[in-house]
Amino acid sequence: MELLKARIASEGRIIGDNIVKVDTFLNHQIDVSLISAIGQAFYDYFKNQTVTKVLTVEASGIAIAALTAQKFNVPMVFAKKAQSVNLDGAVYTSNVYSFTKKRAYDVIVEKKFLGPDDRVLIVDDFLAEGNACLGLIDIIEQSKATIVGVGIAIEKGFQKGGAEIRKMGYDLRSLAIIEAMSERDGIRFR
Amino acid sequence: MELLKARIASEGRIIGDNIVKVDTFLNHQIDVSLISAIGQAFYDYFKNQTVTKVLTVEASGIAIAALTAQKFNVPMVFAKKAQSVNLDGAVYTSNVYSFTKKRAYDVIVEKKFLGPDDRVLIVDDFLAEGNACLGLIDIIEQSKATIVGVGIAIEKGFQKGGAEIRKMGYDLRSLAIIEAMSERDGIRFR
Repeated sequence: MELLKARIASEGRIIGDNIVKVDTFLNHQIDVSLISAIGQAFYDYFKNQTVTKVLTVEASGIAIAALTAQKFNVPMVFAKKAQSVNLDGAVYTSNVYSFTKKRAYDVIVEKKFLGPDDRVLIVDDFLAEGNACLGLIDIIEQSKATIVGVGIAIEKGFQKGGAEIRKMGYDLRSLAIIEAMSERDGIRFR
Repeated sequence: MELLKARIASEGRIIGDNIVKVDTFLNHQIDVSLISAIGQAFYDYFKNQTVTKVLTVEASGIAIAALTAQKFNVPMVFAKKAQSVNLDGAVYTSNVYSFTKKRAYDVIVEKKFLGPDDRVLIVDDFLAEGNACLGLIDIIEQSKATIVGVGIAIEKGFQKGGAEIRKMGYDLRSLAIIEAMSERDGIRFR
């Protein structure tokens, strides 16, 4: 998606050799028109498959998932990241290690929101090592729902998540794949 | 907003005498068409004032804020809830006590996203004791931006947040105000 790549190239700030900060438009301040275009791109790619739910994980996936669900006209569900006192009832959980936050946490979805009749599109802002995405896949498999595919805004192609999810046979659509990046040479897209 | 009140009345689950769970449409599973109508209601109320940013706090405010910002055609910013290793640079912070989670946390916004020229609409899913909202007000005041008003989906009118924010002189628009509720008698709206 050229619009997204152009924004990453112009506004992304590279830190070290594997962090790119895109907080001016994707995950702190949100450019809603860009995110809406991202949702449209996922819709264009997956529209011929029946999607009944869009699933993401809090917090930075929520805006993308909401605007993607808007295109499909289906509900969005976001997995929560730890037990809240307001969460009760039967839940699906999966344990996820975050390299960004350097700690493990549970992702949690109440069972009533996913079932065998659902056809689920997973979306998220970033795919790097793939742990958050694998946690969502685990939860959907527990629910016996069907995974239609995975829509990612920015894939870090030099980390293993994308290759692993494709190898598992899932239809992964990443709108911008960073092949390599460094503070000195900038970003090279696949 | 009758549509929202009807959903609360039909799907809200009352626990004890001050928790109403609306996770089937507002803050775990998201009914995007309802949230879009909520954004439209905030737009209709605040449209004659210039709004340059919509501000909320992660996580359950994000979907409402994104769909509200879509109506105003302005960026959305969500405050983060603790120091992340990917957050650097100068930040505004405010300490907030959550009665739901029974702990205090910092809400954080990078300084580059709010400044004296901004006119900010705060939005959130719930207003109860008002602490999260007061934290956002504190952050906006630190930035010298102007607070246009506050848009809330569900205000618990029997808790003090709404009265306090109105007393401070802010234009608070709550789409459903719960006057009283109990497991036995259900919900009474103001």
